[in-house]
Amino acid sequence: MQHYDLDVKVISVATSRHGFLYREEGLNLPALLELATQKRPLTEHPGVRHWANVLEGLQATGGDVLAEATWTNLRDAEPAMSHIRAALSQGIHVITANKGPMALAANELLLLAQEHNVQLRMESTVMAGTPVLSTVREGLAGARVRAVRGILNGTTNYILSAMAAGRGYAEVLKEAQEKGYAEADPTADVEGYDALAKALILAAVVFGHTLKPDQVKREGITGVTKEQMQRAVDEGKRIKLIASIQAVSDIGSAPLEARVEPVALPLSDPLAHVEGAMNALTFETDTLSQVTIIGPGAGRLETGQGLLADLIAVAGALNR
Amino acid sequence: MQHYDLDVKVISVATSRHGFLYREEGLNLPALLELATQKRPLTEHPGVRHWANVLEGLQATGGDVLAEATWTNLRDAEPAMSHIRAALSQGIHVITANKGPMALAANELLLLAQEHNVQLRMESTVMAGTPVLSTVREGLAGARVRAVRGILNGTTNYILSAMAAGRGYAEVLKEAQEKGYAEADPTADVEGYDALAKALILAAVVFGHTLKPDQVKREGITGVTKEQMQRAVDEGKRIKLIASIQAVSDIGSAPLEARVEPVALPLSDPLAHVEGAMNALTFETDTLSQVTIIGPGAGRLETGQGLLADLIAVAGALNR
Repeated sequence: MQHYDLDVKVISVATSRHGFLYREEGLNLPALLELATQKRPLTEHPGVRHWANVLEGLQATGGDVLAEATWTNLRDAEPAMSHIRAALSQGIHVITANKGPMALAANELLLLAQEHNVQLRMESTVMAGTPVLSTVREGLAGARVRAVRGILNGTTNYILSAMAAGRGYAEVLKEAQEKGYAEADPTADVEGYDALAKALILAAVVFGHTLKPDQVKREGITGVTKEQMQRAVDEGKRIKLIASIQAVSDIGSAPLEARVEPVALPLSDPLAHVEGAMNALTFETDTLSQVTIIGPGAGRLETGQGLLADLIAVAGALNR
Repeated sequence: MQHYDLDVKVISVATSRHGFLYREEGLNLPALLELATQKRPLTEHPGVRHWANVLEGLQATGGDVLAEATWTNLRDAEPAMSHIRAALSQGIHVITANKGPMALAANELLLLAQEHNVQLRMESTVMAGTPVLSTVREGLAGARVRAVRGILNGTTNYILSAMAAGRGYAEVLKEAQEKGYAEADPTADVEGYDALAKALILAAVVFGHTLKPDQVKREGITGVTKEQMQRAVDEGKRIKLIASIQAVSDIGSAPLEARVEPVALPLSDPLAHVEGAMNALTFETDTLSQVTIIGPGAGRLETGQGLLADLIAVAGALNR
């Protein structure tokens, strides 16, 4: 990229289907995409070395930066966890859009990165490429964040927005599934597990504190009735699924209080006006009272934007 | 600051009243503040060298970072312009909260900084310490910003918010003056000059383009009537003083279109809900559609926060 004086060479590509490919002189991405589209083996790319086992390939080769974007697994975060651990241990910077390892072990992995003098960046794990993690780490540098509250799941916000307009949960969920906003099994979204994972990441990145999933009080939106929504609207409020993390003044064994739950917000709250699939996050700080960032929270292009911003930040460190 | 491993020593202090003080071993800030409170000469601080002329003092000494926070002058930006030019030319990083030099010459000064391999950072010049310039430069790295729209003046937003509730301009202005939100001469705010200065800074930082003040179409809020406000409210809209900068598709002699003017916004626009003295800025980008940042736009603590974040960013470069 000219503006950043950045020349990126992709030397490895790995997928669960194709294994690990490596070519020191660089891979031809359009050629690889063409092979994938034609469902042909990526090993047909000229001059590549190949490992069936991704981790073995990663450990046998090298590189400056690993971009981890395998599927999200909130139970043990594999295979991403092993990929990230292996890369950091080899002194490879890591950028990732994968919520799993960050929700379960962000502090441990950040420490591993520090020990190996490399960066671990994860902008896209919370609100996709909307810059919230870089904002709190760099933009708000020097400010003390006391609390974070946000709308971190687009599916539930889409459903609640439609319900605020008078529609019922089941009908809206069906429509969201048809439009592709909600999965066939919507549990991860509507029961608040996706928002919870992002709350764990914020606990680690904003407060430097490791929370376990069962330390977060979680309530999804399946119990929110049409009548509750209407009553909130009548009272000039909006019900939103809010993830919140608050520093507890009495610093001790439980310095953070974290929740994911439906909350009736007054219209004076910027989060009350965040509609549809948009996400938002409010930071409460000692120097700036409230700062709110509103932006998209999902999408392929949006997720790619976060990885790109992370890559540019890492490149700044590589060029030192 | 422990968290950033940052040990800051203030070796010079300058004011228009006291001139330039320097002590290589560091100045005792509480002692200086005590002298200032007692209206005694700051030269009573032990062991200081003193110059009556600030610029001579700056040029005769040195340092790593200059923090420029003299008064805003939108005519020729002096004396800040000379201070910043002198510092950058000596290879001193500059952080500033001063809108004047940035509105009139940000690109020239950024180039001067680049030539001397130092940073020039100005977070607090737009929305005080609310991180908007760092967000666009670093958080949104790699995204192409197509347009920026914002509420960049708290005084006019306070007045318009009260008018939306049914009150008249003159009455609300008087109240704002009594509360200290508006100056005795409110021209710079209500005629849109303050918002215009910030639009010039955004043109430079976001688009890398120098606009002259007369290239921005400017209309203040003094012509907004109670009737217009009421009609907007009846139509489900809110009138806000909006600064906007748009990249014109036909890149030529005038690649940017910039305006400061009252606009009736639909309630679906996040800016429509920004009330009172709060400020907000929406970035329209190729990869993230709209990203909006809402936060305080003025205040001593809030401005200090921006300077602190800039200082921490510069310190990162110093430690390379």
